[in-house]
Amino acid sequence: MSEIDIPESHPRYESLLTRHRIEAGVEKGITSKQGLIAQGRGEAFDYLLGEETTPSAKRAERAAAAQLLLAEKPVLSVNGNVAALVPGEMVELADATDADIEVNLFNRTRKRMVAIADHLQEHGATEVKGLAADARIPGLDHERAKVDEDGIYAADVVLVPLEDGDRAQALAEMGTSEIVIDLNPRSRSTQHATVPIVDNIIRAIPNITEHARELADSGHEQLEQCLKEFDAADALDNAEQTIRQGDLS
Amino acid sequence: MSEIDIPESHPRYESLLTRHRIEAGVEKGITSKQGLIAQGRGEAFDYLLGEETTPSAKRAERAAAAQLLLAEKPVLSVNGNVAALVPGEMVELADATDADIEVNLFNRTRKRMVAIADHLQEHGATEVKGLAADARIPGLDHERAKVDEDGIYAADVVLVPLEDGDRAQALAEMGTSEIVIDLNPRSRSTQHATVPIVDNIIRAIPNITEHARELADSGHEQLEQCLKEFDAADALDNAEQTIRQGDLS
Repeated sequence: MSEIDIPESHPRYESLLTRHRIEAGVEKGITSKQGLIAQGRGEAFDYLLGEETTPSAKRAERAAAAQLLLAEKPVLSVNGNVAALVPGEMVELADATDADIEVNLFNRTRKRMVAIADHLQEHGATEVKGLAADARIPGLDHERAKVDEDGIYAADVVLVPLEDGDRAQALAEMGTSEIVIDLNPRSRSTQHATVPIVDNIIRAIPNITEHARELADSGHEQLEQCLKEFDAADALDNAEQTIRQGDLS
Repeated sequence: MSEIDIPESHPRYESLLTRHRIEAGVEKGITSKQGLIAQGRGEAFDYLLGEETTPSAKRAERAAAAQLLLAEKPVLSVNGNVAALVPGEMVELADATDADIEVNLFNRTRKRMVAIADHLQEHGATEVKGLAADARIPGLDHERAKVDEDGIYAADVVLVPLEDGDRAQALAEMGTSEIVIDLNPRSRSTQHATVPIVDNIIRAIPNITEHARELADSGHEQLEQCLKEFDAADALDNAEQTIRQGDLS
């Protein structure tokens, strides 16, 4: 990867790449001030997790792949930080799971929506939903509730990375299954997820894609089994334990 | 306080005030992108601490007040986030301890230096050091090493809130006693501090000021005793334990 001028083997590669992408996101009007603060909160939790994917998170990522493959209408929800951090990786995951991509922002402005859609298209997305905004998630105020009728509104499974608790809850109340990526295992978002993934998004998305490719030829029953073996409460307890025992120095 | 339109009794008052000040800091060119990310990291640790001053941090704040009162030449170092978060509070602390205020930035530009000095003066500072930059802290690269010869360079005690590890180490190697405020008890900065304070700066600074006012009439011996009773290693262990046992939900 020539995006930043250091080898992938560099011990701080992932962290430097993240920093580079988030700053580029600010330049492009994609990452908000709130997004930068949220990025910092994530960094602190990731630091306590040892900045690596735990075995428990790996299992969650496999279950997420199975759930996306089982879905009739899977949608990947993209906000500012997601677009800045993993634009190409989200496009690859959408390809691997035949999912739609929809931009969905907490602080929605037309300008940011378009900047994010453009950024995703520069990274290979052919269709980006979210601009039609012809449906509403019930139970949320007007701007934050806006979704596409043939997108998140109609989806049976939605991947919502780095989402706020209100949104996650409102989606769950619509009966939508949620795959949540969040580094805080006790956030409200993870509590509403069918599959909560406590991992850095920059590691999690490529891992889900890899599992989806491995599972691509599996039958319905095998995918159901893979999902059934996953225990959300166990995964969250496990993540919390790792954070509490993590090396602070 | 009329700075934000909610009562101080509101359960999220402190958090909303912090958010308001940090965003205003961005508008004024005081808070950098790196500063916003650092703010988020702090929020995650503060959340694990329960967003309150622990009894151990209270003792550290009292020891810090004693050390500032004992100092022959105390200086309060101010960076972008400190200026944004506690401008008036730093001025009050400087008054209570007869300390100088010096702006000292990791990413130093003339424009940010001036914006921060102006911001402090708007909050009541009469003299702000840091712009002369006629001395260097040994062992740091040029820009980051710049200090005032009659300020941090000559100080026997420096309060360095939210400082990076390299700076804290270089100052310690000059023989300067450091009072560090940092929400990560295992950061390199806290390891170099004579008095490490693991607390949110928005709570810590007013607390130190209050202790300084209480201790103002104490004799040299009593202040020495107060400082001697403080155990830095104990305080850090205590903070780490609180973080590990903190409520994540």
